[in-house]
Amino acid sequence: MDEVAVKPRDVMPENARTLPARYYTDPSLLKAELDGLYGTMWFHAGRSEEAQRPGQYFVRELNGHNIVVTRNASGEIRAFHNVCRHRGTRLCSEATGQFAGSIQCPYHAWTYDLDGRLIGAPHMLEVPHFRKADYPLQPVHAAEWDGHVFLTLRDHSEPLAAQLGPLVAKFRNWNMQDLRLGRRIVYDVKANWKLIIQNYNECLHCPNLHPALNNLSHYLSGENEPLQATYMGGRMDLRPGVDTLSMDGTCPRAILPGLSADDRRHVYYYCIFPNMMLSLHPDYMLTHTLWPIAPDRTINVCEWHFLPSELARPGFDPADCVEFWDMTNRQDWYVCELSQAGIASPAYVPGPYSNREDLLYAFDRFIVDFHAKGTKAAR
Amino acid sequence: MDEVAVKPRDVMPENARTLPARYYTDPSLLKAELDGLYGTMWFHAGRSEEAQRPGQYFVRELNGHNIVVTRNASGEIRAFHNVCRHRGTRLCSEATGQFAGSIQCPYHAWTYDLDGRLIGAPHMLEVPHFRKADYPLQPVHAAEWDGHVFLTLRDHSEPLAAQLGPLVAKFRNWNMQDLRLGRRIVYDVKANWKLIIQNYNECLHCPNLHPALNNLSHYLSGENEPLQATYMGGRMDLRPGVDTLSMDGTCPRAILPGLSADDRRHVYYYCIFPNMMLSLHPDYMLTHTLWPIAPDRTINVCEWHFLPSELARPGFDPADCVEFWDMTNRQDWYVCELSQAGIASPAYVPGPYSNREDLLYAFDRFIVDFHAKGTKAAR
Amino acid sequence: MDEVAVKPRDVMPENARTLPARYYTDPSLLKAELDGLYGTMWFHAGRSEEAQRPGQYFVRELNGHNIVVTRNASGEIRAFHNVCRHRGTRLCSEATGQFAGSIQCPYHAWTYDLDGRLIGAPHMLEVPHFRKADYPLQPVHAAEWDGHVFLTLRDHSEPLAAQLGPLVAKFRNWNMQDLRLGRRIVYDVKANWKLIIQNYNECLHCPNLHPALNNLSHYLSGENEPLQATYMGGRMDLRPGVDTLSMDGTCPRAILPGLSADDRRHVYYYCIFPNMMLSLHPDYMLTHTLWPIAPDRTINVCEWHFLPSELARPGFDPADCVEFWDMTNRQDWYVCELSQAGIASPAYVPGPYSNREDLLYAFDRFIVDFHAKGTKAAR
Repeated sequence: MDEVAVKPRDVMPENARTLPARYYTDPSLLKAELDGLYGTMWFHAGRSEEAQRPGQYFVRELNGHNIVVTRNASGEIRAFHNVCRHRGTRLCSEATGQFAGSIQCPYHAWTYDLDGRLIGAPHMLEVPHFRKADYPLQPVHAAEWDGHVFLTLRDHSEPLAAQLGPLVAKFRNWNMQDLRLGRRIVYDVKANWKLIIQNYNECLHCPNLHPALNNLSHYLSGENEPLQATYMGGRMDLRPGVDTLSMDGTCPRAILPGLSADDRRHVYYYCIFPNMMLSLHPDYMLTHTLWPIAPDRTINVCEWHFLPSELARPGFDPADCVEFWDMTNRQDWYVCELSQAGIASPAYVPGPYSNREDLLYAFDRFIVDFHAKGTKAAR
Repeated sequence: MDEVAVKPRDVMPENARTLPARYYTDPSLLKAELDGLYGTMWFHAGRSEEAQRPGQYFVRELNGHNIVVTRNASGEIRAFHNVCRHRGTRLCSEATGQFAGSIQCPYHAWTYDLDGRLIGAPHMLEVPHFRKADYPLQPVHAAEWDGHVFLTLRDHSEPLAAQLGPLVAKFRNWNMQDLRLGRRIVYDVKANWKLIIQNYNECLHCPNLHPALNNLSHYLSGENEPLQATYMGGRMDLRPGVDTLSMDGTCPRAILPGLSADDRRHVYYYCIFPNMMLSLHPDYMLTHTLWPIAPDRTINVCEWHFLPSELARPGFDPADCVEFWDMTNRQDWYVCELSQAGIASPAYVPGPYSNREDLLYAFDRFIVDFHAKGTKAAR
Repeated sequence: MDEVAVKPRDVMPENARTLPARYYTDPSLLKAELDGLYGTMWFHAGRSEEAQRPGQYFVRELNGHNIVVTRNASGEIRAFHNVCRHRGTRLCSEATGQFAGSIQCPYHAWTYDLDGRLIGAPHMLEVPHFRKADYPLQPVHAAEWDGHVFLTLRDHSEPLAAQLGPLVAKFRNWNMQDLRLGRRIVYDVKANWKLIIQNYNECLHCPNLHPALNNLSHYLSGENEPLQATYMGGRMDLRPGVDTLSMDGTCPRAILPGLSADDRRHVYYYCIFPNMMLSLHPDYMLTHTLWPIAPDRTINVCEWHFLPSELARPGFDPADCVEFWDMTNRQDWYVCELSQAGIASPAYVPGPYSNREDLLYAFDRFIVDFHAKGTKAAR
């Protein structure tokens, strides 16, 4: 086991088994997760820089909801259902864009300001009792954490900070709000979103599947935090002589300015429920955002974020870390898709977890408890 | 409002709202409409000229029915289910064609005459009790109105003329039976068929969506007939100096010979339930025929019909009116598709109609009444 | 009727009609057939030569099951569910291949020997009570008949020979185990699997649909065996001067060495339930293997098998019989697809069988009885 100091893991309960197949294949369970988990928690939607200026917008789709995220005239983040209050027409058909001060429906020209107030409705004044104030765009709650935009579809939700808990303080030194997008790759993964999260939360598969990664960080190194109510994760050690996760382990970029000496020797991997995977490297931030489409299909948006000073440097080229993670991502989606295919077989039966799959077992409990609660609530 | 004399519309009821989403998204409601409306009314299928000679045929598909329309030896229009009485084989696999005097199944050569009588069935005479007379093609009722072919799947239907009512007399001067197809464009619209009908029946969206159309006919001009039992429509005024709806408003074709001076200054738009939209211009006829495929998908066949004398003229080119309506069509399908997308969102709630959307509200009542009747009948 | 001696067929019962549409269109009936017929009988999977050497494998998919067929170190045929016992990952993602002595999961490197025993499971020994012996690959029963590989998903099945019955002796002279694959064509047929079997079991359609075949073998020639419990079939006569079924009726290959003079003048067509159609020619073997995908879709694997001595001959070219059957196949799938389309119409009603469709009517009884039993068993 090389020269790595391995911290032993707790022994798993004797009956620790993977979940029954229906958790990965049953459309009604996915619907329950979309309604009850994605529909009640804050979910990750994008970056503040994508709606930086008033009227700059981006659109996201989740569980049949189509949502426009923009910034109002005062610079506050705003989100609305992309549905005109007149005859239901989708207002924005582009994925990103810039409103010219207001949002106008292409059908009959109903017009809303950037806070969603109806300010124009041709010929509606001929209708008695019609009042513009009754027809604002339907809002979606939006909030920002260090440059990350989160949304929630629940009306009376706790603040985002309450959901994030200790993570806000924990990652403050990374100054994530200062980083800017350098590269985005969108993957269409033929697997359940939970298999992607499980794949992210164990490195037992690394020596076999990711030899390049294992050369940079030994798969038994690092340690996991115990599962929290709204996230789980841990950190891995960079091997001696390795500066970051890149094709050759060298780091051609400046280290993020706020990091401690200890943090410079680790990569943090945190899954923030329900749909964000945040990977913090000494010199860049990697984010995965999951958009479940079907029990066996998930859109997975992967983004690399860098210091603006690095991005501005002539000849800036992130290929060393983009290629490294793109290769590693594809290896991961490959086995996620094989797992989805195998679990869908009538011959699949739950199998035993090793001690190094502790986060997966904990995550499974979280999911099982969620569905059990839903069943009880439905009675 | 320019110089247009606007006829005021009646004020809408205070609670006049668009329909709940399920009318546009629920497959069981579409099925009920296909069975109960399309399945009991006469629906528009095509033009007499498409089955002009004995044995000339065309095929249409509706609600799982595949129907061959042809003409018998006496020149009468005939339609049959495209299903062999032996083992159910589809008889015609081509969309159009010419029978050589009889209809033969490609599988075992059962043969029918153009009235659907079984006239050949190899080796069946070895079967005792087998009588050819027991196995005619199953007929579909077909009828013609001034060159339009209509079908009905109901066995004991009222005559086509009863369904058309006053329209037969109203449009006699257009001599539609004399017109011939000049151009066909088939659109695949990702929207419910009722949204296409609603889009057709108001021009409130015209100044915003169709500036070219609005330049030729002011959107507040004209007037609607009150909703009838089986159709609805009205007419719009051509602006002074405009001769027809074409790219520049000029008319390079002869005016239809039977028209009054008044009719030459208008364009008539009539939706004949369930699936025909008939647009009569001074010099040409435009037809849309709707074929619902799914709650969110409709095949829309758009055809331009002209005087044969015009079609025969050297260098005949209908581009002026084909391009005009193709552009306008595409603008319309664009907003119909945006409406379908928005209405499918869980955030959609019915919105208020203006007074100028009177036909839509009336059509909605017709649809709601239809479904209410069906529910009652099902008890 | 040329000079052919026609053996009269029994007269069909007066009410002998084709099956109601639901047998060809209802997904729940297909599911019952896949579970109850395909899931309990031995079904044809491939040829012994496709898993000739230890570790050589091929993969088949049926009713959601994904199955690896290989040969163990002792040369015995073996089959397993393609599902790792750890987290359910599909083990083989390629359709064919060669294991290097063992089967290793690409995810966490669990490793099985060619008898399915778990022989490696990294880090699992840290888990108390974990025993490798508890996690073998789940077996599927496999057996061989003269070079054909059959599988069964039922645990306590009768031996393959019991299902084949008299066929084992009947076709021994063909020495099918000596033949080798010369050509494979995979057809994706938009028709129910039973329509393909029915099409195979009557030649009443031959004069109309297959004039080339009818030139080589008169459609009224030959005779059928009465329907057996697990197969049905018969044989057709080659016309005088015709040596085999090929484009011109000549035979450029050696006749199979074990055949009698009588067998050299016939082509045998046997449908071995549920999914094999075996066509034995004087000089080659043609097999069709059916894989139902949906009520209206079947993958149909057609293979031509020849004497190795012929395959080894310089310039060997099977085009004469490949083209002949490919042409004939395509004609058959064309009418099968037309039948599927017609039967799916609400206008379809069961039609009368002729006396020459005796096997079809018998097969229908077999299918109806199967479903009736299922219904009774479900009570």
